[in-house]
Amino acid sequence: MRIAIDAMGGDFAPDEILNGALESLESLDKGDTLILVGPVETIKSKIGEKNLNKYADIIRIVDATEVIGMDESPIDALRKKRKSSISVMVKLAADGEADAVLSAGNTGACVAGCQMRMRNIEGVNRPGIAVVFPTFEGPVTMCDVGANIACKPINFYQYAIMASMYSKNLLGIQNPRVGIMSIGEEEAKGNEIVKKARELIRSDPKINFIGNIEGRDIFKGKCDVAICDGFVGNVVLKLTEGLVDGLFKVIKHEIKQQSFLLALSFKSVMMKMYRKYDYHEYGGALLLGVNGTSIICHGSSKARTIKNAIMAAKKFHSMGTNKEIKEYLAASNVRGADE
Amino acid sequence: MRIAIDAMGGDFAPDEILNGALESLESLDKGDTLILVGPVETIKSKIGEKNLNKYADIIRIVDATEVIGMDESPIDALRKKRKSSISVMVKLAADGEADAVLSAGNTGACVAGCQMRMRNIEGVNRPGIAVVFPTFEGPVTMCDVGANIACKPINFYQYAIMASMYSKNLLGIQNPRVGIMSIGEEEAKGNEIVKKARELIRSDPKINFIGNIEGRDIFKGKCDVAICDGFVGNVVLKLTEGLVDGLFKVIKHEIKQQSFLLALSFKSVMMKMYRKYDYHEYGGALLLGVNGTSIICHGSSKARTIKNAIMAAKKFHSMGTNKEIKEYLAASNVRGADE
Repeated sequence: MRIAIDAMGGDFAPDEILNGALESLESLDKGDTLILVGPVETIKSKIGEKNLNKYADIIRIVDATEVIGMDESPIDALRKKRKSSISVMVKLAADGEADAVLSAGNTGACVAGCQMRMRNIEGVNRPGIAVVFPTFEGPVTMCDVGANIACKPINFYQYAIMASMYSKNLLGIQNPRVGIMSIGEEEAKGNEIVKKARELIRSDPKINFIGNIEGRDIFKGKCDVAICDGFVGNVVLKLTEGLVDGLFKVIKHEIKQQSFLLALSFKSVMMKMYRKYDYHEYGGALLLGVNGTSIICHGSSKARTIKNAIMAAKKFHSMGTNKEIKEYLAASNVRGADE
Repeated sequence: MRIAIDAMGGDFAPDEILNGALESLESLDKGDTLILVGPVETIKSKIGEKNLNKYADIIRIVDATEVIGMDESPIDALRKKRKSSISVMVKLAADGEADAVLSAGNTGACVAGCQMRMRNIEGVNRPGIAVVFPTFEGPVTMCDVGANIACKPINFYQYAIMASMYSKNLLGIQNPRVGIMSIGEEEAKGNEIVKKARELIRSDPKINFIGNIEGRDIFKGKCDVAICDGFVGNVVLKLTEGLVDGLFKVIKHEIKQQSFLLALSFKSVMMKMYRKYDYHEYGGALLLGVNGTSIICHGSSKARTIKNAIMAAKKFHSMGTNKEIKEYLAASNVRGADE
């Protein structure tokens, strides 16, 4: 497969992105191509540093002279910067020259670029970003975490289907339990859109739908898939990140106050936990619902994150989930009233 | 002051509620009255157990023979169960017989009961629930966490004002920095209502408004007050609870695998943290914007939680925040276009 990588996206671009991409070379399969998108000279000099001649025929460099900043307005930036690494990358996918795209740059621009250029899978109204939360009770797939902040019931329904398939294919969870994020377990709870979405999902018996879930349930093993609108999902994602960081700060502080020795022993526990629950291990989030494979990486991605994200792209591509989604939606007779 | 307590609300009612209420007696001031609302016999027998004769003149018992279950639909339950402890408790406040109400029961029923019976402070369109998050960087007040799941811009504006005053009066934070929960720091981010709310808040120069904040910022010391709609706030509140529990489970598990001795030493660190960051210490959340003082306690409140909540009610009552809110809104010329 051909994987296009935005060499200029993210807080540590281009160094960490290119390092990660080049480190992945030894794990690629025969026939794979890595397409590095960014300023040719920068990319060439990085490849030169590393003595990678034997990989020359599986690396392709595509020039992109502009960069979309992390804080730029996505739509404006895409319109103005046609030569940006994100614009050029998604165009490669649109033109059939790449099977997967991958960026740690401006998330909004990357999502919008993929939606505009790669188009949706037939039958999908709006794509959604899916992330996997590693929890003590097992991994939970959440969708959407930021692609679509004004969800209609049909979007929730399609997220339930797409995220279930992702959970089954990626994590091997048969018949994943799907919950919809709301503010109480009872049927009466939730806003009007969530209530309508619940009816729509329930009308499809092939979805293993358990109804409302609350914020705390994500970490309690109550569901395998949590669906929500992109506003709520994005808050959840970033809150989780901030809270975990904050809590570790508190623990470190308290432990240091107690004993230096304890702090030392605890450090190895923390390192082990970091390895197990770290988002760098998961590589990135998947934009579910677009034609092709699109991996959205965290802005602070390091080389390891990028390498793992490339592996995630390969895995998703090989799973055939997109084809499955298309077939499922073609056979489903559930339609949203409002789209 | 006169504090009415729902003796039958919460997972551990009536035992823990009554224990907490009675334990608070020694900390009350001269002239205070504790009004215990619930089945007279149950309450009397609990008082009898404890040999509290010297407090007899500051305890009032008000009979309530019904209980609203934790899972009942709030509005239906309030309509049907006129003799429930929540209904009777809020009626006491409405009739001028109580200055504060306090319940660990069905949150929705308690909020709806207070709104219907106690009425809003003049100028307030909708009340909001405010909670204080203890973070490593200091306490953050969040409003709303569940009273109002369909917020209009004017509600956000009023939450900014009310929560700022609460933060100043309760926590001593002068000129608290107010952020609005959104999905990115940039101006372009957020849904239409959040964008309009931002304009409205910004039009009042007396609010120390810092614009958008993201989920992670709550734990990074970026703001003192975080405002959001009740849907998002409720998800945040419950997610935080679930994540902290989940993370401690993971830490305990990993530490035990490493060494039993380490687990023992870590236990005392954890206990210390629990004391510092535990919601039981804060007692409960405040329903900001109603006439009087209304404290919403966590469903799993123990005696200690209730005792602390009673102290919180006393503190809030003495701060005079409601009067300040009324005066502020009377002088403000910011009005929502849609309410």
